[in-house]
Amino acid sequence: MTTSAPAPHGPRELVELTGHVLDTGLFTLVLDDVRALGGDYEVVHFDVGKDATDTSTVRLAVTAPDARTLDSVVMRLHSHGANAVEVEPARLVRVERDGVFPADFYATTNLPTAVRIGERWVDVENPEMDCGIVVDAEARSVRTVPVSDVRAGTDLVCGAAGVRVTLPPSRSGGSGFTFMQSEVSSEKPQALVVHQIADQMRAVRQAGQKVLWVLGPAVVHTGAAPSLAALVRGGWVDVMFGGNAIATHDVEQSIYGTSLGVDLSEGSGVEHGHEHHLRAINAVRAAGSLAAAVEQGVVTSGIMHALVVGGKPFVLVGSVRDDGPLPDVHTDVLQGQRAMRGALTDVGFCIVVATMLHGVATGNVLPGHIPLVCVDINPATVTKLADRGSAQARGVVTDVGLFCAALARELTGSET
Amino acid sequence: MTTSAPAPHGPRELVELTGHVLDTGLFTLVLDDVRALGGDYEVVHFDVGKDATDTSTVRLAVTAPDARTLDSVVMRLHSHGANAVEVEPARLVRVERDGVFPADFYATTNLPTAVRIGERWVDVENPEMDCGIVVDAEARSVRTVPVSDVRAGTDLVCGAAGVRVTLPPSRSGGSGFTFMQSEVSSEKPQALVVHQIADQMRAVRQAGQKVLWVLGPAVVHTGAAPSLAALVRGGWVDVMFGGNAIATHDVEQSIYGTSLGVDLSEGSGVEHGHEHHLRAINAVRAAGSLAAAVEQGVVTSGIMHALVVGGKPFVLVGSVRDDGPLPDVHTDVLQGQRAMRGALTDVGFCIVVATMLHGVATGNVLPGHIPLVCVDINPATVTKLADRGSAQARGVVTDVGLFCAALARELTGSET
Amino acid sequence: MTTSAPAPHGPRELVELTGHVLDTGLFTLVLDDVRALGGDYEVVHFDVGKDATDTSTVRLAVTAPDARTLDSVVMRLHSHGANAVEVEPARLVRVERDGVFPADFYATTNLPTAVRIGERWVDVENPEMDCGIVVDAEARSVRTVPVSDVRAGTDLVCGAAGVRVTLPPSRSGGSGFTFMQSEVSSEKPQALVVHQIADQMRAVRQAGQKVLWVLGPAVVHTGAAPSLAALVRGGWVDVMFGGNAIATHDVEQSIYGTSLGVDLSEGSGVEHGHEHHLRAINAVRAAGSLAAAVEQGVVTSGIMHALVVGGKPFVLVGSVRDDGPLPDVHTDVLQGQRAMRGALTDVGFCIVVATMLHGVATGNVLPGHIPLVCVDINPATVTKLADRGSAQARGVVTDVGLFCAALARELTGSET
Amino acid sequence: MTTSAPAPHGPRELVELTGHVLDTGLFTLVLDDVRALGGDYEVVHFDVGKDATDTSTVRLAVTAPDARTLDSVVMRLHSHGANAVEVEPARLVRVERDGVFPADFYATTNLPTAVRIGERWVDVENPEMDCGIVVDAEARSVRTVPVSDVRAGTDLVCGAAGVRVTLPPSRSGGSGFTFMQSEVSSEKPQALVVHQIADQMRAVRQAGQKVLWVLGPAVVHTGAAPSLAALVRGGWVDVMFGGNAIATHDVEQSIYGTSLGVDLSEGSGVEHGHEHHLRAINAVRAAGSLAAAVEQGVVTSGIMHALVVGGKPFVLVGSVRDDGPLPDVHTDVLQGQRAMRGALTDVGFCIVVATMLHGVATGNVLPGHIPLVCVDINPATVTKLADRGSAQARGVVTDVGLFCAALARELTGSET
Repeated sequence: MTTSAPAPHGPRELVELTGHVLDTGLFTLVLDDVRALGGDYEVVHFDVGKDATDTSTVRLAVTAPDARTLDSVVMRLHSHGANAVEVEPARLVRVERDGVFPADFYATTNLPTAVRIGERWVDVENPEMDCGIVVDAEARSVRTVPVSDVRAGTDLVCGAAGVRVTLPPSRSGGSGFTFMQSEVSSEKPQALVVHQIADQMRAVRQAGQKVLWVLGPAVVHTGAAPSLAALVRGGWVDVMFGGNAIATHDVEQSIYGTSLGVDLSEGSGVEHGHEHHLRAINAVRAAGSLAAAVEQGVVTSGIMHALVVGGKPFVLVGSVRDDGPLPDVHTDVLQGQRAMRGALTDVGFCIVVATMLHGVATGNVLPGHIPLVCVDINPATVTKLADRGSAQARGVVTDVGLFCAALARELTGSET
Repeated sequence: MTTSAPAPHGPRELVELTGHVLDTGLFTLVLDDVRALGGDYEVVHFDVGKDATDTSTVRLAVTAPDARTLDSVVMRLHSHGANAVEVEPARLVRVERDGVFPADFYATTNLPTAVRIGERWVDVENPEMDCGIVVDAEARSVRTVPVSDVRAGTDLVCGAAGVRVTLPPSRSGGSGFTFMQSEVSSEKPQALVVHQIADQMRAVRQAGQKVLWVLGPAVVHTGAAPSLAALVRGGWVDVMFGGNAIATHDVEQSIYGTSLGVDLSEGSGVEHGHEHHLRAINAVRAAGSLAAAVEQGVVTSGIMHALVVGGKPFVLVGSVRDDGPLPDVHTDVLQGQRAMRGALTDVGFCIVVATMLHGVATGNVLPGHIPLVCVDINPATVTKLADRGSAQARGVVTDVGLFCAALARELTGSET
Repeated sequence: MTTSAPAPHGPRELVELTGHVLDTGLFTLVLDDVRALGGDYEVVHFDVGKDATDTSTVRLAVTAPDARTLDSVVMRLHSHGANAVEVEPARLVRVERDGVFPADFYATTNLPTAVRIGERWVDVENPEMDCGIVVDAEARSVRTVPVSDVRAGTDLVCGAAGVRVTLPPSRSGGSGFTFMQSEVSSEKPQALVVHQIADQMRAVRQAGQKVLWVLGPAVVHTGAAPSLAALVRGGWVDVMFGGNAIATHDVEQSIYGTSLGVDLSEGSGVEHGHEHHLRAINAVRAAGSLAAAVEQGVVTSGIMHALVVGGKPFVLVGSVRDDGPLPDVHTDVLQGQRAMRGALTDVGFCIVVATMLHGVATGNVLPGHIPLVCVDINPATVTKLADRGSAQARGVVTDVGLFCAALARELTGSET
Repeated sequence: MTTSAPAPHGPRELVELTGHVLDTGLFTLVLDDVRALGGDYEVVHFDVGKDATDTSTVRLAVTAPDARTLDSVVMRLHSHGANAVEVEPARLVRVERDGVFPADFYATTNLPTAVRIGERWVDVENPEMDCGIVVDAEARSVRTVPVSDVRAGTDLVCGAAGVRVTLPPSRSGGSGFTFMQSEVSSEKPQALVVHQIADQMRAVRQAGQKVLWVLGPAVVHTGAAPSLAALVRGGWVDVMFGGNAIATHDVEQSIYGTSLGVDLSEGSGVEHGHEHHLRAINAVRAAGSLAAAVEQGVVTSGIMHALVVGGKPFVLVGSVRDDGPLPDVHTDVLQGQRAMRGALTDVGFCIVVATMLHGVATGNVLPGHIPLVCVDINPATVTKLADRGSAQARGVVTDVGLFCAALARELTGSET
């Protein structure tokens, strides 16, 4: 391979990328981003794997007109798993005010990340994208922190030096999720997709990990609530995230047999039955909580009922369009985000069904090595989730009701 | 009820509408159309049913600035089942040139229609919308004819006088298809919809009528071909309409195990395998026809194979974007339309799956009293079919692959 | 007209509906809803207008198996402007616990509403849907209250008796908004729609009322920010509602010339520039507020800049997917809803551009007589807003960037 | 770079790819396709450009289990511009039957292609995808031929040997169309896109080439017909392709001021005015042709009028859903395709507006080096066009009406 001289002037950083960089398109993304952010590159070393099973190693000399731009290029390349070759300690800056980062803070990716402290690499405990990294040098503890939660007096990583990321195997070329490597499409044999997702869930459960479901209200409208309840009872739902709407429609169906006024046992009906919606919320408010409503016999079926009975945790976070809301709903979205983060421990697989808002929110806090599948009848929802930075997201464009019924049949044998 | 004086001047026609005109919204449509076309109305008589099971009868005096506008208003009201009260004989005009109607030809609806000849009402044999009506007075034969097929020397109905339509029961208020009376939506309990369509098909078969399927290529892409083939073998597909693409992809899957390059048994694969597509077409061209290709063992599975083996008729009509095409495909669209018309005898139910082009084409030639269900993952396709004049169309927005699998399971017990 | 005997047994209420009930389809909706909720009806009186300019008056005897169902039917009919004929005083029940309504609370529509207290009708001060009605009998004050804000010890209207609604002229048949009376469609001559909305805004301004804009982030992505800023400067934006994203992208564009990493002056670029996003938020957090950021010269252009400089109020309400957020954003959604309610005074026209979440939230709190136009490239967003109960919503499916540019050119003459 | 030994057994072909293969993602596509089709590869030589302006050269030893698979891999790589290193003469096989290719025919890409005859490379005169290549060795003439048009006795290229393709500059890395290099999105600053397309058209015109417009009926529904007519008059439309619908709606608007019953000057109206539609068709049929209808004063405005008056050629090809059709419409789709091919001479730019059917059909016959822009409000249409093999297609998701108005204003200065 050609080895070329370094750029004559301007700041310069040598970065390295290893893995299936060619056949995954990663290298193309890296080169695109260097130039998009105002940098330039030279290929300094290219050890290309000779066949499909080999990994390649590339070294680029990245240059930029100024140090700030170079820093921003190097940070961006982190999101593709490319790291600086030269090992420097991370630069720490003391936070001066609550809720405000220093100006040149390091903005995190959601990849496994390590920070160079003294002579050692210390892993970031909780990778999350669009955060800062707080270092407690004494305790050798390194954690991400969202800007709203940062406190004055802590030490934050600034600049890109001394930070290293690792691409999860699924993105560097070896993955179990081959069925979704191509683009979002409704033209996939969906029965096969159901099998593959079921297999993935079985594998996750066998590995002692948890399955997180993020649910939108259309789960209830499409008649999938009984399937979901069966999945909960079968042990295939360990944690549930959602909003006020999914829980309310589910409860409304238990109390009135309707969801937003649609009579689900008849399939026809009242499109605007807001009133039932509001009365269901009021009934749970009167009980005090969803758990109390289940205990008091107010809610006797449905997804929330199954979660309460099965002792499965759920996090409901409200939005500005909510009626009520139910007493279990976090009305402060930052507190809601914190509750979601707190429920991610041991999650090994995440499936988002029929919700863009809570799906994107989950993608925001989910570490990048956890597979995330997004199921929706609307291709735009699936695309949006992937576009917003959740590179691990795979999309399935299908009918939510039939999909959940098929998955429940496959995993639990139940006909719902 | 108030009875008001007729408009002082200008042409005027008394029309009557009977049925569930209020609770079906029909009356609103009628009034809208009168004004939209430049006419005006007075309610001359209104015998409103007192409860939900009663029919109402309304008489309107429709006026317009000139006779031509009035004619056009009265023709339009035919599409809502409203007829002139006064009985006049139809006015016939001799066609002067092949393929050209007289200027004021009566444009048909797709409703059951009768024409007043002498002292008798004679039924139109083959209701079809956007046609003319040819009268053979001697033979007392009355038929619709598309403009391309009209011949010089025949007598055509002109103006709206002497033409009467009948609204099918499903649209005047009493229908078996209640599940689809509300708007297009993906938020319906789809399992229930599957049951209802299966019931409808059973009823049609028991009545000795035929089920017509109109299929688009996504039927194959979504993995639904085995389900469709099972439905054919089970006797649930009496006639099939489609284009070059559905038949080609189906055949390609039989020959190569792929459809447009997607390997259906793996679910992953080549997005742009045009070459297989073309080779499959060429192989059938070499055989001479789909039937010959089946006989010669070139095509051994799939939907077209099942149709050929079962002796079920199919009509394939080409389009400008076709490759090939297959030898069975009508490349002249007018001939294709004629072939479709010829295959409608005894059809009692029509289901359109994953095609807008051939779905609209079928809606164009299908009599208005035959229920038509349109299944697609894209709400726009469903809406378009209904908007283009097929008022009997009901939409199901769902995943085509899972839907066909569920329907096949329900009707044939087969797990595909 | 026929007058029929009342139903032999079961509770019964005589309701009346006046207006253009036939040609608006309202009567059909009423009859549908009566039966959908389990009631039945007889048409007791029907005084149909003889022509298109006349109003009709209908009296229905509504019956139901029990009083509770009857109550629920009558409440529903309120949403169509139908009222009980018999005048009874409203029934008031004392609220026992904060945040919980009595079980049979009256659920509000968003129509102008009056409550019968003693011998007088008292107008509800702030119509809003899905609320309860609190009566301060001494002060003769009647107000809606959302369930989260109701306090123990207040008196709430229960049941449907003693409540009367009025249909705004636009929905009973006479409206200035004729261009949008038909369904959502992208196949409308959009230039004409721009003219009509501009006219509506001029009329509202001339009437001394305010124009409320509800904006989503795509306003910035599509390059419409300069057009919006021009509209603000021209005095066509009196109040703005939005979320963290629109304000952040707008500010990001001012600081970095990018929005989510897309370089708007080049039209190409970085799709995933999250980092700029986060740095822009951090910069405003460091300044303390958007107003402070403008004052300190951190933000020098864009929509938020124009609003701050022009002294126009804005309400930003956060969501669970937010980064940051900006210091001006309400993170508690109930507080956000309250702030939105507080900013509705004198609003006479509302335009929602490219947001479903904040559009629906606005529809929830907006009185039903204020016209609401929803502009989006996605028909589903427009449909959703209308479906969720905002019957006054009209949809325009168009390109947001070109639409705002055309509207700004029409209203301000500026070429942006 | 590593040079590795050839695969020990099985057929093997050395292929070479030159250009911006890394930063365009081309190399990834190549490797994907080799394996997707059942082949394997070794990187034999990799001369990577050191910076963004350099080209790279890669040599792969492609192997496969059998010669047929290898052939199919090498043919596929042609679509990415990769050619066999070893130069062999093309293998010619005599066609035995009209309309049937020999079994192992070479299936064309739409790239510039040459065939090795004797010792010389002869250029294919009319590159078109999914065709065969007919060689007249004496005349040294080499042409693509669709399967339907091949005649017995001609010599066809079989296998991949002796065929060479050239990637157009736009796809190997240097392009003027940078604004559309990223994916389909409605979130682009559309005003900028308008400018760039206008610039492209100016450049094409200056180069003495033609601009081809492919139009769908929504062009008329969205009110864009006056803008299009202005563009025709301004000389920006050299050739027009479309179907029966666009021409009919355009003519209908000229005759009745309506399009499918929508009154375009009012913006409100009749959704189902099929009758006008049919009468407009009949009027043109009576005249004999569109040109005759213009001459006789039947059609006095609109797009077709402007084309006829300006002497610009148009090709209208029918479909199975057509009413009528107009006398100028090709009802045989193969004849229609031939007419489209015949009108491509000197076309240097193609813009498809609001049609999927005719857009895909055009993409099928258009050489791959001619830029193609697809404008539609529906992202699915744009995606479909690109997916179907038209790699040169770029998508603009926008409002067709406002887009055409903006483009006409930019190019002709006219306010329509």
